[in-house]
Amino acid sequence: MIDRRSAIDHFADRLVAACKAKGSPVCVGIDPVWDRLPAAIREGRDARKARDVVAGFDLFVRGVLDAVAPHVPCVKFQSACFERYLWPGVESYHRLAEHALRLGLIVIGDAKRGDIGISAEHYAAGCLGDPSFSDIEGKRGPDALTINPYFGKDGVEPFVELAKKQGKGLFALVRTSNPGGDAIQSQMLANGRSVAEVVAQVVASLGESAVGKSGYSLLGAVVGATKPRDAQRLRELMPRQIFLVPGFGAQGGSADDVRACFKSDGAGAIITASRSVLFAYDKDTSRSWQSAVEAAAKKMKDEVAAIIGG
Amino acid sequence: MIDRRSAIDHFADRLVAACKAKGSPVCVGIDPVWDRLPAAIREGRDARKARDVVAGFDLFVRGVLDAVAPHVPCVKFQSACFERYLWPGVESYHRLAEHALRLGLIVIGDAKRGDIGISAEHYAAGCLGDPSFSDIEGKRGPDALTINPYFGKDGVEPFVELAKKQGKGLFALVRTSNPGGDAIQSQMLANGRSVAEVVAQVVASLGESAVGKSGYSLLGAVVGATKPRDAQRLRELMPRQIFLVPGFGAQGGSADDVRACFKSDGAGAIITASRSVLFAYDKDTSRSWQSAVEAAAKKMKDEVAAIIGG
Repeated sequence: MIDRRSAIDHFADRLVAACKAKGSPVCVGIDPVWDRLPAAIREGRDARKARDVVAGFDLFVRGVLDAVAPHVPCVKFQSACFERYLWPGVESYHRLAEHALRLGLIVIGDAKRGDIGISAEHYAAGCLGDPSFSDIEGKRGPDALTINPYFGKDGVEPFVELAKKQGKGLFALVRTSNPGGDAIQSQMLANGRSVAEVVAQVVASLGESAVGKSGYSLLGAVVGATKPRDAQRLRELMPRQIFLVPGFGAQGGSADDVRACFKSDGAGAIITASRSVLFAYDKDTSRSWQSAVEAAAKKMKDEVAAIIGG
Repeated sequence: MIDRRSAIDHFADRLVAACKAKGSPVCVGIDPVWDRLPAAIREGRDARKARDVVAGFDLFVRGVLDAVAPHVPCVKFQSACFERYLWPGVESYHRLAEHALRLGLIVIGDAKRGDIGISAEHYAAGCLGDPSFSDIEGKRGPDALTINPYFGKDGVEPFVELAKKQGKGLFALVRTSNPGGDAIQSQMLANGRSVAEVVAQVVASLGESAVGKSGYSLLGAVVGATKPRDAQRLRELMPRQIFLVPGFGAQGGSADDVRACFKSDGAGAIITASRSVLFAYDKDTSRSWQSAVEAAAKKMKDEVAAIIGG
């Protein structure tokens, strides 16, 4: 069940290679929401039954993964969408992540976990996988996990240690793309740095011990696409972090906004779009929902390739 | 299934009343770890099987809850300990929380969730409960949830909105008790405040709209017990927040350290101990494990009552 090669290779090297192989550093966000699923999938299911909704998610997400896998290197599962449906949702999340792994996709679990000490170890094992369980089949866990670094060093290290052992990766929240983030993350310290920049320094320092052949650390950073100036400063402070950049498309980030997240060689970031790809059939009604999703993924891939190529 | 009274009453009022009724503002942390369970519970179970471990947790935690319920007002479930065992663990977490509710305990889900917009709404519903599911029995969800406020206002508001509707509560991480927290939370801003103090102001402001008859907001704060000076400053900045104070006992916080978390009337905080109570039978081997846990809970309760009484 365990893919020996993927268990040994460094996460950042695998991600860089996958972006090169697919021709564009993009990621499709898997954020399923019941009300927005195709009518054909909702039909005959009861939204008041968690297990009915989860069965609908299962059908929908498998269709999305099959449609985008030939085109993009990476997908990101929004854990909240599944956790909303309790333990049946959590089971579906892991089974769908496994399906994505089998399609050759790099899978990021967007669960934004954060705690200290043994609790952080528990989250790392629960979210990145624990191959020792003999009674849980088809659960390798995603390749990478988003984490919340507000606890500082001893909140991040347990995740880094497990990721090292398993050839997996992490993306620590540094700068978020929501308007309210400013009230904390943009505050200026007495030393002339913003709070986000201090977090960036902690992340850069913790990532040093886990740099792959590509020059990037297995510990990356989440940097919102709607703050191009911030991105540029953070790029300087975190030269070895791959930036996971949400906010492209539906959240308002434009192609130009994301350019600052890349290094001068056009590497070092992966751009995520969720709703604009996942629910593309809302606007593109001329074909099947699955074809609309595929077309939107290809369009986004080409747009991002053009930005970093030009 | 839904208790109408608890769905209407304000969370802070319920918590204040429960602390008064039980005679001490204390909380027992439910952080089960396989290797530390009583030998009698581990016997015949296989640690490599997630479902075996979870069955052991179920037996152990029910025993703990039954032992402490007559003495303490509140318990706090560490979600990480259960999530480590994937969806069987998550199911057990919710079923055990339901058992605690039936015993009349106030139940805090310590899951430290944080995200923005619709993802925050999903987490709120998944973690605090969604009474609309017709196929999930015995799942009301905990009374309160810990959240990570690094996203700022729009990361916290969706949780507050759902908590208001359901008569539930929240505790936002403001100051954590781990040594590494300083590198971010203690940084001084140009305006003379620390990062934790800025977070405190955001929390205080967001909690204003949801103050109960007791004078406390449903939005409380997590403030570590090992920083008495910080606690005093934070107490001033957050007069309407109930402080959830971890770190008493095994994590190193002493009785004196926690005094600064209370207001001058001896109210406004709830003190948590996890390992020192949960695994009390490691040191107290003269009686059954359940009696040792009960004795440790009573001892902690009396110690805290003495601090705020004296």
